[in-house]
Amino acid sequence: MAVSPLAPATFPDLPEIGGVTFAAGSAGVKYQGRADVMLALMAAGTSVAGVFTRSATRSAPVLDCQAKLGGDPGGPAAILVNAGNANAFTGSRGSGSVDVLTARVAQETGVPPHRVFTASTGVIGEPLPHDRIAAKIAELYAGQSGGAMEAAAKAIMTTDTFAKGAAVEADIDGQTIKIAGIAKGSGMIAPDMATMLVYIFTDAAIGQNDLQALVSGLNAKTFNCITVDSDTSTSDTLLVAATGASGVDVTGKAAFAAALHDLMRDLAHQVVRDGEGATKFVEVQVTGAQNDTDAHKVALAIANSPLVKTAIAGEDANWGRVVMAVGKSGAAADRDRLSIRFGDITVAENGWRAPGYSEEAASAYMKNAALVIGVDLGLGAGQSTVWTCDLTHGYITINADYRS
Amino acid sequence: MAVSPLAPATFPDLPEIGGVTFAAGSAGVKYQGRADVMLALMAAGTSVAGVFTRSATRSAPVLDCQAKLGGDPGGPAAILVNAGNANAFTGSRGSGSVDVLTARVAQETGVPPHRVFTASTGVIGEPLPHDRIAAKIAELYAGQSGGAMEAAAKAIMTTDTFAKGAAVEADIDGQTIKIAGIAKGSGMIAPDMATMLVYIFTDAAIGQNDLQALVSGLNAKTFNCITVDSDTSTSDTLLVAATGASGVDVTGKAAFAAALHDLMRDLAHQVVRDGEGATKFVEVQVTGAQNDTDAHKVALAIANSPLVKTAIAGEDANWGRVVMAVGKSGAAADRDRLSIRFGDITVAENGWRAPGYSEEAASAYMKNAALVIGVDLGLGAGQSTVWTCDLTHGYITINADYRS
Repeated sequence: MAVSPLAPATFPDLPEIGGVTFAAGSAGVKYQGRADVMLALMAAGTSVAGVFTRSATRSAPVLDCQAKLGGDPGGPAAILVNAGNANAFTGSRGSGSVDVLTARVAQETGVPPHRVFTASTGVIGEPLPHDRIAAKIAELYAGQSGGAMEAAAKAIMTTDTFAKGAAVEADIDGQTIKIAGIAKGSGMIAPDMATMLVYIFTDAAIGQNDLQALVSGLNAKTFNCITVDSDTSTSDTLLVAATGASGVDVTGKAAFAAALHDLMRDLAHQVVRDGEGATKFVEVQVTGAQNDTDAHKVALAIANSPLVKTAIAGEDANWGRVVMAVGKSGAAADRDRLSIRFGDITVAENGWRAPGYSEEAASAYMKNAALVIGVDLGLGAGQSTVWTCDLTHGYITINADYRS
Repeated sequence: MAVSPLAPATFPDLPEIGGVTFAAGSAGVKYQGRADVMLALMAAGTSVAGVFTRSATRSAPVLDCQAKLGGDPGGPAAILVNAGNANAFTGSRGSGSVDVLTARVAQETGVPPHRVFTASTGVIGEPLPHDRIAAKIAELYAGQSGGAMEAAAKAIMTTDTFAKGAAVEADIDGQTIKIAGIAKGSGMIAPDMATMLVYIFTDAAIGQNDLQALVSGLNAKTFNCITVDSDTSTSDTLLVAATGASGVDVTGKAAFAAALHDLMRDLAHQVVRDGEGATKFVEVQVTGAQNDTDAHKVALAIANSPLVKTAIAGEDANWGRVVMAVGKSGAAADRDRLSIRFGDITVAENGWRAPGYSEEAASAYMKNAALVIGVDLGLGAGQSTVWTCDLTHGYITINADYRS
């Protein structure tokens, strides 16, 4: 499959994060001739925070991770991920597979079972061939290295057309901490849930509860604000691990929160940039709503509207479809206070096409690969920003033929 | 544009309905070389009931109709509809256009202004060229005939690939009453609102309040249960007019309600069969939910899922995507009680692929042009049936290039 036209030019240089190592391998879960399983190991005392899909049909690994997160934070930790099979809607066999893999990781690596976090991504409803994965764990353990994070990012891809990674540093009272993360996701992406598979590592020191509170809050402004197709995965998982290897305590430090926010937003944007069939990256900015909840409803109604998304694909400045989406959102709106911008071009205001509106200027703007749609409801201070992509023939081709 | 492969073979023979006449004409609102405006006139004493979009950005004609519906039911009535321009998001000019047209119809036909119902469908945000329509009203009045209902159906089409009409009769204590209706709609179709433009006429006698109650109830089971693309129009209008010309009082008659239900469901199905780009007609049957509201949520989550709809387009029996849609719906669901059918083929039950599941049989079933997806949640007695179509390259082609 061709790489998304919105992909970054290159995979970023990811620094090694003290206390974390990786390895990737080929277990042949579904794909042949590529890596499809990765194992990350974290030093004793690493804090692990997570956010997961709220789907009522969430996968066995998600249920297992949720049960484990509250556990004793002592001891080393491990993350095992496979691509090609989601181990979702696999009944009691699904949790059996998780138990087998957890036990094998614990046996090979010495990580306590309650600190082994697994995830599976791919086809739903097929039994996970866990024996093939279990047979690879000794090899993955033997091959651990701090520099293999890019290989790990590649091993967890499904319909992704590029591997996703990002890194930031933060200055904490004169000391530097590092944060690096990887993500996968391309279709079945919708917000208001955790999202996709995202693994973030830092050498900062922070307690588990503080880390969890920070991650949950930032997730609401990053991964929960992206949508490709309004469909929410059964497997969405975000894990953030803080090893403390830097010796720098970041508890309550705004610089750490800002750096983590930047990194999470970067990875979230990369998922949208790899949206199935995407040719445009779109930021929807909603302001002036009665409250933030209403603003988010309007932003999502626009970002998920097939008619808005196809107009963007066609480079058509069809702002009437934005009006339609505002109207159907369920949020309070007053036609005569509504204004709509495409980039810096005001296309509509006061319930009517803007006096100086130029169809030519708007059409020229729509040819950009990155677009901003701004809506001000003129009612209050509520706001929300959501990121999405267009809906193209590519999405149909990928999903009408491919069983992911 | 090619006619939908799901279109009926022919437009049905619509009977003349006592007390109702029609005419269609070409006002050149946007389209050239085709009829784009229709006027229907109804005899004095006709009861008129209606249901409209709940969009917060609904069009000027919708707002006007809603204000008029509660008025004095005496005197004749008129319906004026144009295609090519929705007169939506047109500020105070929009209601000015409605007033001009209402006044002209009243002047030419003698119908009291508060009984003149208008609708406009087409592009949003452009000023309605109401002068062109007003200039045609005398001609439309002069050309009225009871047999011109098919011409009226054609005049209100936008992206429709076929005109939509249906007729039924009901036996009321040995006397026959007739009901006939027309509809337009193809894209920007979503339930939980009134829907599209639908005009239904009957020679039965029934008071306005009784008719309204009946129509609102049946709407919830018909037009509010279809979706093409989850996008809700600013202009959706359903009007039902009972002239009483048959002299048969149908108040409280189950046979009338059943006949009207049949006709409304028929027209609703025709709208789905003309869904933009549709190649499959899909009935989603949800049973066993905790309540009907939950069942409807699940049915819509399935019917609106881009991943489910593209799988159907690809004739892929990808029931994992149905599991995903159930999970994201927000309704109560228990993975281990869920069962899923494609037609008569049980694909999943008890939280797992069905023991006798045959991928070949399911794939063969998916080749049908009409499909049933059945989901039983195993929790209660709640149920809902929703109708939709698949999501194909045709939808992208129509909407990425065409400004409707």
